[in-house]
Amino acid sequence: MYPLRMDNIMLTSTELRIKLPSASYSLYIAPDLFDKPEVLQQQVLSKQALIVSNETVAPLYLDQVRQALSHIQCDTLVLPDGEAYKSQQSLFCIYDALLRHHHHRDTTLFALGGGVIGDMTGFAASTYQRGVRLVQLPTTLLSQVDSSVGGKTAINLPQGKNMVGSFYQPHAVIMDLSTLKTLPERELSAGFAEVIKYGMLVGGDFWQQLSSHIQLIQAKHRTSQFTDEAWRALSYLITQCCCIKADIVREDEREHGRRALLNLGHTFAHALEAITNYERWLHGEAVAIGLYYASVLSHRLGYLKTSDVDKVKNLLHQAGLPYLIPQDIDLDCLQTLMWQDKKVQDNKLPFIVIRRFGDCVLERGVTNEQIKSLLREVSAAF
Amino acid sequence: MYPLRMDNIMLTSTELRIKLPSASYSLYIAPDLFDKPEVLQQQVLSKQALIVSNETVAPLYLDQVRQALSHIQCDTLVLPDGEAYKSQQSLFCIYDALLRHHHHRDTTLFALGGGVIGDMTGFAASTYQRGVRLVQLPTTLLSQVDSSVGGKTAINLPQGKNMVGSFYQPHAVIMDLSTLKTLPERELSAGFAEVIKYGMLVGGDFWQQLSSHIQLIQAKHRTSQFTDEAWRALSYLITQCCCIKADIVREDEREHGRRALLNLGHTFAHALEAITNYERWLHGEAVAIGLYYASVLSHRLGYLKTSDVDKVKNLLHQAGLPYLIPQDIDLDCLQTLMWQDKKVQDNKLPFIVIRRFGDCVLERGVTNEQIKSLLREVSAAF
Repeated sequence: MYPLRMDNIMLTSTELRIKLPSASYSLYIAPDLFDKPEVLQQQVLSKQALIVSNETVAPLYLDQVRQALSHIQCDTLVLPDGEAYKSQQSLFCIYDALLRHHHHRDTTLFALGGGVIGDMTGFAASTYQRGVRLVQLPTTLLSQVDSSVGGKTAINLPQGKNMVGSFYQPHAVIMDLSTLKTLPERELSAGFAEVIKYGMLVGGDFWQQLSSHIQLIQAKHRTSQFTDEAWRALSYLITQCCCIKADIVREDEREHGRRALLNLGHTFAHALEAITNYERWLHGEAVAIGLYYASVLSHRLGYLKTSDVDKVKNLLHQAGLPYLIPQDIDLDCLQTLMWQDKKVQDNKLPFIVIRRFGDCVLERGVTNEQIKSLLREVSAAF
Repeated sequence: MYPLRMDNIMLTSTELRIKLPSASYSLYIAPDLFDKPEVLQQQVLSKQALIVSNETVAPLYLDQVRQALSHIQCDTLVLPDGEAYKSQQSLFCIYDALLRHHHHRDTTLFALGGGVIGDMTGFAASTYQRGVRLVQLPTTLLSQVDSSVGGKTAINLPQGKNMVGSFYQPHAVIMDLSTLKTLPERELSAGFAEVIKYGMLVGGDFWQQLSSHIQLIQAKHRTSQFTDEAWRALSYLITQCCCIKADIVREDEREHGRRALLNLGHTFAHALEAITNYERWLHGEAVAIGLYYASVLSHRLGYLKTSDVDKVKNLLHQAGLPYLIPQDIDLDCLQTLMWQDKKVQDNKLPFIVIRRFGDCVLERGVTNEQIKSLLREVSAAF
């Protein structure tokens, strides 16, 4: 299925069909999709819908989406923006809005925003009256390439990230690429971190061409003058990432095996986010640091060459991403947090390591000591 | 698969295998199962388990179950008893206990109690770290014949019953019939309401023999002297109900069609529970009233004979159950609550009607006026 070729990417409308054992659904990937009411209208089942968004995204796109659904009872809920609000309180605000407006089992929830809105609205959809229809409208690069596909939903608990959640596939994902025009540059970079992760997972042409695509997209984003070529590059990267993810999820929807590969760099990232109370880095930035440490770990285990590790470092740097853990982070505390990961079994923590770009594996034999010296020695370079 | 014959029921151990499209699992149905540590031990996956129970059941059986699992890290959580505690607060108490004791993805949750504990622990299991192993240990007749099979989990919200939940099949259901010895008579009767519902759904021998089985079991329960014959009758009724339910759920796990039949009498029941704030009746008692009103409705629609309606009335009465709505209930308010049911679509409320015992159907054409006069005229007989 991948790598797709660039010239197969059409600008006007790209519909990608995701077929999983538990469900099939379409991804729509193109600019200006929110200007096409019929694309949104055809996703609802009944005469009810609720759009959930946040205070940053709502002023930009909520009216447009609500307009398209003005033929039915379309309620809206605008939550505060940020990882801190991916909480029990916000979740029960969604249930409350659904009940206050008498939403039935055949209603449709639209998640308009980034990963936080998508994960939380997804969890509400999977549990309100034991499951209602869900449509993802991701407005950040990160959620477009990653969290809107694959059906993981969650909220955070004070004790940890994504501690409560479900596997629940959306009915459709509509990615209006034009939303990226209003995305802050820092958020765009954070999205590239996940794109780079996919590149490391599959290698090949996709990996080789990443640098030039990212450069082109960033240049055009800065001037707010997207050319057809830039749109095409963006469509290509997003479509590729979704195909790669769909391919992995299809084989292993509930993460008993291969799906774990998608966690490349994430064990470091989750601990970095937790130790800074989710306030210092965007998720993608923490992932970027995690990808670099996973690369150095892979080198130390005898897999990646120094030049390959440098390639990762340079790509992250070029994309405007951090790659080193700053000196002020307490590395002992960080390591303790890593060992509280959901993936720990019998006090052992598995890591995804890169044997070569395009060949990553789950490595269960990494010791606490190896991680301890890795954290210390690499971070000393900051 | 059913009706099973009485002489196929073995007293020492009955293992019933439930095969659904999404999962297969075993029901163990026999007296003294909690005295067999190996039955409990073989259900865990790792070295962790959490037993969730309530203040009524814990003093009776918690030690016994914990003993059986003393070879691993076995934590316990005892919640207050009652429908009022099937709440957001209790749910987050379960998550909190799991996190406080560092439970990982491979932990096992044991739900030791009736339907409230089962539904709530089931929902926690389906969502903690996106799903952990669940074993139901139902200790009431109602939860043994009904809520422990089929995979519906839920909590209540202030605005309505079971408004948040999931479909999640347990790994196993262990029904120690000896727990029924300590069950109050009123709770035993409430369980018979669901048994009678299954009788009405399937008709035949099961329906014909119900009266004598219930009579025998109640007599022995009153004297606390269960004979082999009484154990056999109890096993038979429970096994039959589970088979009937499994058969329906197998075809329609997510209630898109035939599973709705299991709601016979329940639209009335849920509204009766809501209007009395879940305090006046046990769920089974409200179901009993609902079954009688569903029978009269079926008669009024030209299906059941008067003598059949009387048979339902007499059986409910004999089982110690109510069947009429008392005069102090506001019938207008009750009807408003009925129309807030999860099953309402386009303001229409479907009802399960009995064409004859063993042949029930979903009837979408019942009007508000028909229900209004039904409620008024039948209740006038109180």
